[in-house]
Amino acid sequence: MPSEFDIIRQYFTSSVSSQSRADVVLGIGDDAAILDMADHHQHEQLVQSVDTLIAGVHFPVETSPEDIAYKALAVNLSDMAAMGAQPAWFTLAITLPDDNEAWLKAFSGSLFSLANEYNMQLIGGDTTHGPLCISITINGFVPAGKALTRNTAQVTDKIYVSGTIGDAALALASMQGQCLLREDSTSYLDNKLNRPAARIGLGLLLRDFASSCIDISDGLIADLEHITDNSNVGATIIFEKIPLSKEFNSNLTDETLIIPLVLSGGDDYELCFTIPANKQVDFENSVKEKKISVTHIGEIESKTGVRCLLNNTGIDIQATGYKHFVG
Amino acid sequence: MPSEFDIIRQYFTSSVSSQSRADVVLGIGDDAAILDMADHHQHEQLVQSVDTLIAGVHFPVETSPEDIAYKALAVNLSDMAAMGAQPAWFTLAITLPDDNEAWLKAFSGSLFSLANEYNMQLIGGDTTHGPLCISITINGFVPAGKALTRNTAQVTDKIYVSGTIGDAALALASMQGQCLLREDSTSYLDNKLNRPAARIGLGLLLRDFASSCIDISDGLIADLEHITDNSNVGATIIFEKIPLSKEFNSNLTDETLIIPLVLSGGDDYELCFTIPANKQVDFENSVKEKKISVTHIGEIESKTGVRCLLNNTGIDIQATGYKHFVG
Repeated sequence: MPSEFDIIRQYFTSSVSSQSRADVVLGIGDDAAILDMADHHQHEQLVQSVDTLIAGVHFPVETSPEDIAYKALAVNLSDMAAMGAQPAWFTLAITLPDDNEAWLKAFSGSLFSLANEYNMQLIGGDTTHGPLCISITINGFVPAGKALTRNTAQVTDKIYVSGTIGDAALALASMQGQCLLREDSTSYLDNKLNRPAARIGLGLLLRDFASSCIDISDGLIADLEHITDNSNVGATIIFEKIPLSKEFNSNLTDETLIIPLVLSGGDDYELCFTIPANKQVDFENSVKEKKISVTHIGEIESKTGVRCLLNNTGIDIQATGYKHFVG
Repeated sequence: MPSEFDIIRQYFTSSVSSQSRADVVLGIGDDAAILDMADHHQHEQLVQSVDTLIAGVHFPVETSPEDIAYKALAVNLSDMAAMGAQPAWFTLAITLPDDNEAWLKAFSGSLFSLANEYNMQLIGGDTTHGPLCISITINGFVPAGKALTRNTAQVTDKIYVSGTIGDAALALASMQGQCLLREDSTSYLDNKLNRPAARIGLGLLLRDFASSCIDISDGLIADLEHITDNSNVGATIIFEKIPLSKEFNSNLTDETLIIPLVLSGGDDYELCFTIPANKQVDFENSVKEKKISVTHIGEIESKTGVRCLLNNTGIDIQATGYKHFVG
């Protein structure tokens, strides 16, 4: 087996990534990276978070290295989007079961391809031996005081989601043998599960409009509850307003199957956010101009808890009982 | 099993850690932490690195949760020491096989106890299920341009190490059944393996003296080679000068056993660094005053490669063949 040093040099150095940011004084190769703040980020705040993906827990073991790398970085990018942050640097702690060089090459190629899209640089790494596990700590920046948080939603704010909801959960249900998908939709749906699009552009736009924001990783209801619980408010959303893809609709018509996937299915990594009523018109104009897909699905209320109406009747959310794949 | 949210709240929130730094605008509990740079770190650079510990690879599976937590943070602190950085924040990605609350309580108690010693705050976490694995990304600060690196050693510089060398490797050799230890030294030696002392104070002092620095995690020769290779220089060290503890000496007298442990044993997390000849006197006075234990063991030379002399004769380093535990 090649040494950790060989692996890092071959697949994870900056020469492979081709990215070299001006704010990185010293990148990979020493005990730590050195990052400039004063010259490049003088009026900004640093935003940092960590997310781990484990084979067999966060993705099926047969997932391709390209998809694993993409998702590992994308779920971290999604945290930056949810904060309204511009991503900048990341560290990678990867545990590998063996020295499969074809796997590593595919993994690092996909990882840096996505990183380069966002002008991100890998600044630190640790390679260890064991069951496949990828932990990324991501760093981004927001202008001071402009970060989007969960605890600042206000009564009468409008609740929105980006993109479409439930696609990733449907793809996963199919992989787990719970349903059969139409052949013409599998590629679209699998892609939604394996390559979630981080809504960085939307996050940056939301700095000027949103009162709160979160990314949907645990499920729409669960994540909206994080906003309402932290903000000491409640919410009602309208099931019929939740945006579903045509691929989702073409596979499922039975409401008893649809509801748990849409309300409790995780892994979509769309943003759920709130817009104050007096900013709604400007916000809608702004996203229309930028061709960003968002949908108004409900309202923030003073009554705590999250309610979802279908045909003007409350859905018993607990009873849907859907458990998504992510632990 | 309690949810990830429950675990984080109970064992890893700031209320447990009791630490609340002024530069942390928003800590654990949102999609990411928000960190102030402008008001608190205006003339500093951020220093960041990641280190992972895996059960059965980086520590024996029977290691206590207190020792695992201590070591997981200490090896990261050691990276800060090696950079001359003042530690500040960390993120914790922990993969747990089960919901053993006694284990978690012991782990988090030990983790925060060490973090508090250095005024460090946990700013992000991800808890997942799987084989025990702890990955910490640590953040620290250095005054701009003052970080210690590996690639700046100069010919005629003096080579030093902190503390004593080989203790952790001897403790590990004993755990692996390769030797028997005297009863009166096991507690000291086990502690050197499980609770390495991060040399933060020395690292801060070295900002004003050292031309290069690294922490000894892979073994004295291997890590000194990182300095010489990156600096395009070489080195000769004198085996008899390498500081050994009395506990080490009381257990081993056979040179064929001692040499591989001292030269190639990892896990000591002492610092290895170089001091320009013209700063040597001031440096020695400074460490004496601060009661920090360091030892001059060799010189940087123009001839590349690392040599070690014993009785004025070169040791065949490759032939020692000692492989330490860490993968």
